[in-house]
This record gives sequence, structure tokens and C-alpha cells, in this order.
Amino acid sequence: MSYRHPNRDQIRIESVLSALGNPLRLGAVRVLDAGGEHNCGSVLAVLGVTAKSTMTHHWRVLRDSGVITQEPSGRENLLSLRRADLDARYPGLLDAILSGARTDADG
Amino acid sequence: MSYRHPNRDQIRIESVLSALGNPLRLGAVRVLDAGGEHNCGSVLAVLGVTAKSTMTHHWRVLRDSGVITQEPSGRENLLSLRRADLDARYPGLLDAILSGARTDADG
Repeated sequence: MSYRHPNRDQIRIESVLSALGNPLRLGAVRVLDAGGEHNCGSVLAVLGVTAKSTMTHHWRVLRDSGVITQEPSGRENLLSLRRADLDARYPGLLDAILSGARTDADG
Repeated sequence: MSYRHPNRDQIRIESVLSALGNPLRLGAVRVLDAGGEHNCGSVLAVLGVTAKSTMTHHWRVLRDSGVITQEPSGRENLLSLRRADLDARYPGLLDAILSGARTDADG
């Protein structure tokens, strides 16, 4: 099964902000931004989340808003941050958000 | 009656993003950013929203997240965008969001 993703020009800022306005989803995006190849399980492991099923909804929100891609690969789903698309459409937005998340995390 | 507002260091990025991840609330913030003194009614007039009661919830979300201040003034509530606080805490975030909203609005 493959997932539908919006094209770059179908991305809307309200959807991106709403998708990232949640601690788990923002945390997942921070993991993806840190680099490396990730699937759902590896992101959850970094976040310390054990309830895999609760994330199904969150992956869909991130995917539908254009923040990540989720592609089947064998029995797993590879996850990638759509940095190029987001940076092209909303220059500076993703970096400002990730930087802001670090500000909060540092107290 | 006066409202409670979070201090600058109580603002959290998830709350800001969630607050702005809604077309009406983002629209209201764009009106406030354009300048001038505004109350609830004048923002709604610019947005073309006639159902004043539906905005009560939205004003609270914007206030509680630290995006706006809402201060009683006579029989009205003056609304202000907390640009200084947001810019200090999350440099570049508000401008990237407002710029992104213009990108979307321009197609």
C-alpha cells in the first residue's frame, strides 16, 4: 500500500502549523530532522513511545499536511522530512520552528 | 473582567503553532499584524465574519498561547499581537508564518 502525499503547491500553512502544533508530532519531526534513515518504529524508539498504534493518526496528519513522506519499504514504512518542499514554499519556517522547539526544550 | 496571559517564558511553541494552525485565527493575526488599533469587532469586520460568538473560543486560544493580548477597554476588548514577545522567544517564526500565509493567499 502506498500513501497519497500533497504536491508542494498543495501544501497549506495552516495544515503545516496544525500538524506541528502537537508535542508528539513535533518531536517526531525533530527526530527526522536530526538525520539518518527512519521508519515509524525507529522514531518511536527515539521518542520513547511504545504505543505504536496511537501514532498511526499522527503519521497521517504529518503526511497529509505535506510535512513528511511515508513510503512502504518491505514490511516497514520509511519516513522522511520534506525539508526541500517546506523550505521552498515557506522559507525559514521549518528552521524557526525547530529552533523554537530547542528553545523550549532547553527551558 | 481582565484576562490572564502567559508570561513570555511560559509560551510554548506547540501552543503557538496550534493556535495559528487555523484559518480564522491566522487571519485574525494577519489583521493585527497589519497595524492599527483593533478590538474583536473590528477584526471580524475585516475578516468578514459576522458570528461574533464563534470567535470567543478563538480569542481565548490566541490569548492562552501567548499570541495576542486581549485587554478590556470600556465596553470593548482591545487586541494586540505580542510581536515583541514572540520575536524574542522564537526569532523569525512569526515573520515566516505571516510570509507563508501571504504565499498561500497569493496562490
